[in-house]
Amino acid sequence: MPAHRVVVVGGGFGGMNAARHLRRAPVEVTLVDRRNVHVFQPLLYQVATGGLSPGDISSPLRAVLRRQLNARVLQATVTGLDVGSRLVRLDAGTLPYDTLVLAAGAENFYFGHDAWARHAPGLKSLPDALRIRSRILGAFECAERQGASSAAVRSLLTFVVVGGGPTGVELAGAIGELARRTLRGEFRSIDPCTARVLLVEMGPQLLPAYPGELATAAARALEALGVEVRTSTTVREIDGERVVLAPADGEPLELRASTVLWGAGVRPGELADALAAQTGARRDKQGRIVVEPDCSVPGHPEIFVVGDMAHVPQDAGEPVPGVAQGAIQTGRHVARAIADRLEGRTPAPFRYRNLGSLAVIGRAAAVADFGRLRFSGYPAWLLWVFVHIMQLVEYQNRAVVFVQWAFNYFTRNRGARVLSE
Amino acid sequence: MPAHRVVVVGGGFGGMNAARHLRRAPVEVTLVDRRNVHVFQPLLYQVATGGLSPGDISSPLRAVLRRQLNARVLQATVTGLDVGSRLVRLDAGTLPYDTLVLAAGAENFYFGHDAWARHAPGLKSLPDALRIRSRILGAFECAERQGASSAAVRSLLTFVVVGGGPTGVELAGAIGELARRTLRGEFRSIDPCTARVLLVEMGPQLLPAYPGELATAAARALEALGVEVRTSTTVREIDGERVVLAPADGEPLELRASTVLWGAGVRPGELADALAAQTGARRDKQGRIVVEPDCSVPGHPEIFVVGDMAHVPQDAGEPVPGVAQGAIQTGRHVARAIADRLEGRTPAPFRYRNLGSLAVIGRAAAVADFGRLRFSGYPAWLLWVFVHIMQLVEYQNRAVVFVQWAFNYFTRNRGARVLSE
Repeated sequence: MPAHRVVVVGGGFGGMNAARHLRRAPVEVTLVDRRNVHVFQPLLYQVATGGLSPGDISSPLRAVLRRQLNARVLQATVTGLDVGSRLVRLDAGTLPYDTLVLAAGAENFYFGHDAWARHAPGLKSLPDALRIRSRILGAFECAERQGASSAAVRSLLTFVVVGGGPTGVELAGAIGELARRTLRGEFRSIDPCTARVLLVEMGPQLLPAYPGELATAAARALEALGVEVRTSTTVREIDGERVVLAPADGEPLELRASTVLWGAGVRPGELADALAAQTGARRDKQGRIVVEPDCSVPGHPEIFVVGDMAHVPQDAGEPVPGVAQGAIQTGRHVARAIADRLEGRTPAPFRYRNLGSLAVIGRAAAVADFGRLRFSGYPAWLLWVFVHIMQLVEYQNRAVVFVQWAFNYFTRNRGARVLSE
Repeated sequence: MPAHRVVVVGGGFGGMNAARHLRRAPVEVTLVDRRNVHVFQPLLYQVATGGLSPGDISSPLRAVLRRQLNARVLQATVTGLDVGSRLVRLDAGTLPYDTLVLAAGAENFYFGHDAWARHAPGLKSLPDALRIRSRILGAFECAERQGASSAAVRSLLTFVVVGGGPTGVELAGAIGELARRTLRGEFRSIDPCTARVLLVEMGPQLLPAYPGELATAAARALEALGVEVRTSTTVREIDGERVVLAPADGEPLELRASTVLWGAGVRPGELADALAAQTGARRDKQGRIVVEPDCSVPGHPEIFVVGDMAHVPQDAGEPVPGVAQGAIQTGRHVARAIADRLEGRTPAPFRYRNLGSLAVIGRAAAVADFGRLRFSGYPAWLLWVFVHIMQLVEYQNRAVVFVQWAFNYFTRNRGARVLSE
């Protein structure tokens, strides 16, 4: 009997965990990804701000799965699905499956303002991170070329980060630090400390998923880095030169800013559209596929959706949150569900285990939320460093990232600042 | 009296050393470079083969010159010269100088076969290195997608390196190692060990600048890594699918190879053309500007040329070799010459001090030539590692590169393998 063929689309946290936890199952796993590396997403903002190199936060998918002989890796782009004939369409051929695991993540979403994408890049992939790094560092270079202060220099040294979730907080904090610490003394015509960094959040508090006291601590830590925090403020316009902000109570504010970064919304991409069209699966407001409690698609037990693509209902009503742990745990669960089914058992429903949340603000500040245990500042930062280094997939990366950070920390330097890499 | 304005074009070894050694001179230094980083060129081949990230071998120019208050950095592209009015033309404005130091290095040169450039990228810059990395790793990925062995897979797994100098030797050795060691076990349809790596050299021995015994040792070390060494062989054709080799004694050989890399020739770029046209300076066969013994342009004592752009005659008749030490030493010399002249002294002629040569072949092999002292193998490799780590400009890089290498060495892994970075 030929082995049961499992195709996993996406080598992020969800897909990688699904593939790895199938290592003892009697299946043939094919992991398909557009890129050849697994990216440690929580540190993308470090690449975007020159603290780490792409290689530091990525592990070759093949290296990770080298010893898992029931798994192969295919670097290819998925162009479509055929749920009826159980096929995944690739740019180079097709791939038949017996079970399909969709873990393709989400893309930046601009709430209908697609024109903003060009002016306000988001941070979902390594190319995104390199693009943002070029914008930020390029703005300082360009301001230096312009020479003495002027409206153009003002605009070049104004950075607007849209979205007060963890990504926005981390980006804004890192830019504040870059301007006030790393670049200090490196320019002759401009003073990087005069850079203006704004963090704009629609809702009334930063980090909406965190308790209010931690959100307040985060805002204070950001302000200490010179970041202007603007909550209860929506973005009305982004056109590459100006940003128009609309505070809930007050007049619209027009800013000239040459760098605008997007951390406000994500949404699953075309693969989710194809899946919904072919299976009739329901989607939630964020475009995620609403799956059964075992993460399978209603009416299609042979298709599972995990991570940021999936809306997995939980008892309390709230779905599994769109964080790394959500992807890791759903990925792992689906591997178990596939094995269970092959042995004739009914898969258990997925239960999300909240291991706590961490968001980092700068060189020595973070907030930590472990339910009843909440803390911020230096201890939270140390915990954050520890957790993140321990989680990096490869041994190699752990040590390199650790050394790089130790140096960043003691020297205030950021080495990975290559423009036009 | 306004300070004497020195413009240095190029932030490589030559330009960086000229700028830094002017730190106590009563001058205003402007260092212009197209990029924002100093690149440690001897390790470019490591980036091209996935062993190191771009950030590991580059230091932000601004960080290097941060404390040198008489120096500023301008990230800009030089578009022309005006020797008569003492101006450097930039993409953004012009830059007047009292003394000009040209240190723009060299570009890949295809001996009149400009069409080969597209099919056989050379290794002179970070973008070059990333392009080569994509080609090499992409070839393995593509072969895996093709599946079982076929003519297409054969072609994808054939790598031809043109040029048996240090760059060619290092590249061929690193590809051999990648195929036989790093990638081993990572593929399911192909066996990376079956990759064919050819190193083609026109002359009768590899490493023409080295003594014959070391060249022989290098060839043996390469063959141990599976590299086919073909000396006394010219390249007749490169068209993206085929390479035609012509051995001095024998029939032409046609190979299907999807990856061809160029390490055979370099030549100064358009800036040297402009300089020669405006000053009537003579150029040698490799296109370098023939300068006076103090590195200044004949008839133009206010213009110096250093590094790979310059042909600096030495007593023995041979010019200064086109290696890192040549650029470092001429850069330093020119800084002293400028200071001398400002104090009314006549600059001394430049004397090249041969500190020895090192070329590396793989994980544990190298050749070392220190005149009477010559050795190869593991001791030469250790020396090479030591020298290169010590020379990296920034403290940060030293430690990171060291850790990365230690891990590469013990794990046979290469972490910096991001495709489409």
